[in-house]
Amino acid sequence: MKNEAIDTAPAVQTALSNQDLLSQWQGHRRLTRRTIEAFPEKDLFNFSVAGMRPFADLAKEMLGMAEPGLKGIITRKWDAFSDAKAITTKDELLARWDKTTAFIDENWSNIPEGRFNEDDVAFGQWPGKIYWMMMYFIDNEIHHRGQGYVYLRALGIEPPHFWER
Amino acid sequence: MKNEAIDTAPAVQTALSNQDLLSQWQGHRRLTRRTIEAFPEKDLFNFSVAGMRPFADLAKEMLGMAEPGLKGIITRKWDAFSDAKAITTKDELLARWDKTTAFIDENWSNIPEGRFNEDDVAFGQWPGKIYWMMMYFIDNEIHHRGQGYVYLRALGIEPPHFWER
Repeated sequence: MKNEAIDTAPAVQTALSNQDLLSQWQGHRRLTRRTIEAFPEKDLFNFSVAGMRPFADLAKEMLGMAEPGLKGIITRKWDAFSDAKAITTKDELLARWDKTTAFIDENWSNIPEGRFNEDDVAFGQWPGKIYWMMMYFIDNEIHHRGQGYVYLRALGIEPPHFWER
Repeated sequence: MKNEAIDTAPAVQTALSNQDLLSQWQGHRRLTRRTIEAFPEKDLFNFSVAGMRPFADLAKEMLGMAEPGLKGIITRKWDAFSDAKAITTKDELLARWDKTTAFIDENWSNIPEGRFNEDDVAFGQWPGKIYWMMMYFIDNEIHHRGQGYVYLRALGIEPPHFWER
């Protein structure tokens, strides 16, 4: 199958620019924020299905990756990975979420030129290309948020629309 | 926060090339294939949590997006969206999955130059940039596969490792 309008397609082209990727990430993070908001506070920290972690724990894992991960990508220095700690209320979780949102916006443009294609070891532990790590942070959030949607359905709560960012 | 090794970072750079994105997509599709395989056949088509769709229906939605979506991206001609139909066994579902995998590999390089940044209307219904649509196909798969992981846990089955692609 070929596009009739062209004779040849390029072997390599840009699929996503750094700005497209920022827009993707923050769009997903806005959706995850609405997912956090949809949980009653007690269920956010205590409810789950099939013995899995409550959604607050999944969100703390996302926070543990986001700002520390972007710091490692920018500076090439990594701390050990850990989930965000000492968050015990929905308000604290949302405030920490918003602080991370601002950090990402303010620092994204400091990712060095060519960095997305460099090899590194994320958090001193997981080797790979930087673009792969960055996608992992986003994909891990989508994966766990999808699980949060099941928790919300099991609680009889309508989750936010997946396509709205 | 700045990287001390550089004075200025570029305003725009490539985050993912078309080849990186193909690798991401097929990596996720391999993981989803293992997720399909992990379900007992009857549960694949009948089990769910909280009244949601069984995982076979979610996988048929993914199949409805993947090959028809890539065709629209390459040719700029879109059919109406529909889930893959007439699949009633796990073997058929896996065979259709593999056929789509081959189609994607064979046709990916026919995406026209500059196409990822064009505006279009996916399936004649959803307007946006092509890169956004392509990410939607992948993200929708991650989202629903995350839900499939909850189904597997509820069935007492260990899902495949999320990080293995």
